[in-house]
Amino acid sequence: MGEGRLMQSMLLDFYGELLTEKQRECYDLHYNEDLSLAEIAEQSGISRQAVWDNIRRAESALQIYEEKTGLVARFTENAKALEQIKAVTERLSVLTEGEVKRLADEASELVNELINRG
Amino acid sequence: MGEGRLMQSMLLDFYGELLTEKQRECYDLHYNEDLSLAEIAEQSGISRQAVWDNIRRAESALQIYEEKTGLVARFTENAKALEQIKAVTERLSVLTEGEVKRLADEASELVNELINRG
Repeated sequence: MGEGRLMQSMLLDFYGELLTEKQRECYDLHYNEDLSLAEIAEQSGISRQAVWDNIRRAESALQIYEEKTGLVARFTENAKALEQIKAVTERLSVLTEGEVKRLADEASELVNELINRG
Repeated sequence: MGEGRLMQSMLLDFYGELLTEKQRECYDLHYNEDLSLAEIAEQSGISRQAVWDNIRRAESALQIYEEKTGLVARFTENAKALEQIKAVTERLSVLTEGEVKRLADEASELVNELINRG
């Protein structure tokens, strides 16, 4: 899944329920299921133009929600921090005793940053 | 800060930018700054009734955003899991070597759950 596709998928996951049902359906089939406009039109029983309008309006709405709230960006940053913590804790179990305290402190610090960031 | 106040504050933090400016201002002054309707009316130059309408509409909109997206609930669950990870990693640095692997594994498992939960 490319960078753009991942973002489109996350936007739908976060804000999809704020779209109309038709917008959500068209956007999902196009970006997650990779169907063409013609295929979606056939499956949904609406015109190709209507499919395109729904996708465009969905894109626009999702973009506005993210611009205003920034919640996908916030979540993505948290996920990156968690990956760092994961790497640190995984290294802990194969270490000699002397290094444990340093790594445990590093993990604690990362967790604290993440908690304070809210 | 009580449970209700914390929730009101988080809702504003997450979705506040989706409200109108007046709604956001009245809601913030009432719930975060603890001002009365009369005080807000004086400060904002609108009637008490208008302050009340703005707060009520803000509450309603914020509640709908949360009902539809569940993003505050999702972040709250993640924050609880982070507190558990924090407790585990903090214990790591005061342990004998034999216990380190067990606790490191416990922390890794918690982090993985959190990552997979998305």
